[in-house]
Amino acid sequence: MSPRKAYFKHVPGAPGPLRETVERRVRFEEVDAMGIVWHGRYVSYFEDARVALGRRYGISYADFIAHAVPAPIKRLEIDYVKPLRFEEAFEVTAILHWSDAARINFEFQICDAAGEAVCTGCSVQLMLDHNLSLLYSPPPFYQAFLDKWRAGDFE
Amino acid sequence: MSPRKAYFKHVPGAPGPLRETVERRVRFEEVDAMGIVWHGRYVSYFEDARVALGRRYGISYADFIAHAVPAPIKRLEIDYVKPLRFEEAFEVTAILHWSDAARINFEFQICDAAGEAVCTGCSVQLMLDHNLSLLYSPPPFYQAFLDKWRAGDFE
Amino acid sequence: MSPRKAYFKHVPGAPGPLRETVERRVRFEEVDAMGIVWHGRYVSYFEDARVALGRRYGISYADFIAHAVPAPIKRLEIDYVKPLRFEEAFEVTAILHWSDAARINFEFQICDAAGEAVCTGCSVQLMLDHNLSLLYSPPPFYQAFLDKWRAGDFE
Amino acid sequence: MSPRKAYFKHVPGAPGPLRETVERRVRFEEVDAMGIVWHGRYVSYFEDARVALGRRYGISYADFIAHAVPAPIKRLEIDYVKPLRFEEAFEVTAILHWSDAARINFEFQICDAAGEAVCTGCSVQLMLDHNLSLLYSPPPFYQAFLDKWRAGDFE
Repeated sequence: MSPRKAYFKHVPGAPGPLRETVERRVRFEEVDAMGIVWHGRYVSYFEDARVALGRRYGISYADFIAHAVPAPIKRLEIDYVKPLRFEEAFEVTAILHWSDAARINFEFQICDAAGEAVCTGCSVQLMLDHNLSLLYSPPPFYQAFLDKWRAGDFE
Repeated sequence: MSPRKAYFKHVPGAPGPLRETVERRVRFEEVDAMGIVWHGRYVSYFEDARVALGRRYGISYADFIAHAVPAPIKRLEIDYVKPLRFEEAFEVTAILHWSDAARINFEFQICDAAGEAVCTGCSVQLMLDHNLSLLYSPPPFYQAFLDKWRAGDFE
Repeated sequence: MSPRKAYFKHVPGAPGPLRETVERRVRFEEVDAMGIVWHGRYVSYFEDARVALGRRYGISYADFIAHAVPAPIKRLEIDYVKPLRFEEAFEVTAILHWSDAARINFEFQICDAAGEAVCTGCSVQLMLDHNLSLLYSPPPFYQAFLDKWRAGDFE
Repeated sequence: MSPRKAYFKHVPGAPGPLRETVERRVRFEEVDAMGIVWHGRYVSYFEDARVALGRRYGISYADFIAHAVPAPIKRLEIDYVKPLRFEEAFEVTAILHWSDAARINFEFQICDAAGEAVCTGCSVQLMLDHNLSLLYSPPPFYQAFLDKWRAGDFE
C-alpha cells in the first residue's frame, strides 16, 4: 500500500474539478477515549461536503432518487494526517473530478482552522439502472449536468 | 422531575410482562472522551433488546412493515445509574408491559457483568394507520399476538 | 406515563431561563429505513444546543473538565411530536432552568422550518467531586455563573 | 483508481497471517433511507473484528494504552461489493498481515450468511512514542508478540 500522488488521474481535455466547502465543529460524541475524533467519523464529514456539492449543482441524493438512478459507493479511501479534538473548527472540501463514465469521482480534503491538512480521501460511486445493473453511460439528467459543466456554466 | 417508582402502572388482570435479554460488549466508538459510554448510545442498546423481543414474538419491525402499521416512538425516558467502560460486558433486557390499546409499552434494564444496575428506561410507541392517524385499537396481527399472550401461550 | 405539563417546576423568585438556539439540517446518515430521522439521533441534536449554550455562558464541557467537576447526565426524556426528513432544516433550542443545587436542568425544543414543534425533551445533570460523590452545592466556578445569572448580567 | 489484487504485498519468509472472525447482525440504526447499511458503518464493523483479534492475541487497545504506545489509523480503504439489509447476519474477518516495522497491517473481509463477499478493506496503523513521533521499530511488548507469532506459537 504505497502512498498515492493523486486519487484520480487527470483526464486530458476535461474541465477542471468542481468544489464545495462546508464548515464544521467537532461534536462531543465524535471524540473517542483518546480525546480525538474517532477515525470512522470522517466518513460522515466527507458526506457533509458531498451532499453540499450535490445540492448546489443539482446532483443531490434527491435528484438521483427522483430519476431512479441508484449511485452506491463502490470504494472509499481515507488518509489520516493529524487528529481533530472536541470543539475544534474545521473545513471539509469535496472536489468532484470529471468522468465521462457513469461514475462519480469525489476527492476530499479536511483542514483545521490554521489551514493545515487533517485528512484527505476519495470516494467512487457507480450509477445503476432500475435492475441494479451498471450503466454504461450517464443517465440523461446527469449527462445534462456534465454538458453544463463542460460548457463552463459553473465557472 | 421526581424519581419514579415504575415506568408503567400495572393493569389489573393483565398477563405478566414478556422479557428478552441480549448480551453486549461496549464498542470503542461508543465511549466518549471521559472513557465512558456516551449517554446517547443507550438508545441503541435499548433498541437491540426491543428488536430481539420483537423477533422472538412475531412483532418485529418487519411484521409492522408487512402489515403497513407504522409504530413510531412517541416517548423515551432514560435513567442513568452508573457508567459503562470500553470492552465491558453487559446485558440489556426489554420488558414488554401489557396494554389493551394500540400502543407498545417497553421498559428497559441494563446490568453490568456483576448484575448491578447500569441504566433503566422506557419507550412508548403508538400504532398508526396508513394515513398516519392514531389507531383506536390494535390491528388484527397485533391483536392476535395479544390474544396468544393473554392465553398464556408465551409462558 | 402521563403527559407532562412542564419538564421542570418553576422555582419562585428564580431568574428566567437562559436560551441558546442552533440551526441544523438533517444528515443522510441520521435517517432510517422509513426515511425519517431515527429516534436515537435526537439525543445528539439536544447536545448540539446544550454545548452551544455552555460555550456562550462559560459552562462548557471544557470548563467542567478544567475545574475537575464531572457532571454526568442522570436522566433524559424525549417526547416525539412529528418526524424530520433528510435535508430538512430545523432549530434546536436549549433552555437552562434555574436550580440552586449542584444540578443542571436543561429543557429542549426542536422546531422545523415552519416553526412547528418536532420534539421536546429534557436532561438532568448532577455535579460530582473528584471522588465521584454528589456535590451538595455548586462548585465555585458554577456558583459564580449562577451569581451573574441572578444579577441579570445575561439579559 | 484501479482495482487492487491484494491490499498488502507478501513479505518473503514471513509467517502466515493471523485471523479472527466475529458474527454480527445488521442493526436498525445502521440502515439508511435506501434500506441498506450506510457505507460509513462498515468502519465500525471492521473495528469489531480488529478489537476481537487484538483481545485474543494480547495486542488490544488496552495493551497499547498500558504500554503508552499510541497506534493511530493512518490509512483506510473500503471496497463495497454488495449491500447488507436490516437484520441480515454477517461475518467480519480481520486478517493481520506480518510486518517487521512499527506498523499494523489489517485486511478485512465481510461475508453474508451465504458466504458471499459483501465488502473488503484494510487499515494501516503506525506506532508512536510518547512524543507522538513515529517509532522506527516495534516497542518491546509488540516485538514479543511478533516473536511468538514467528515462532509458531499461534498456530
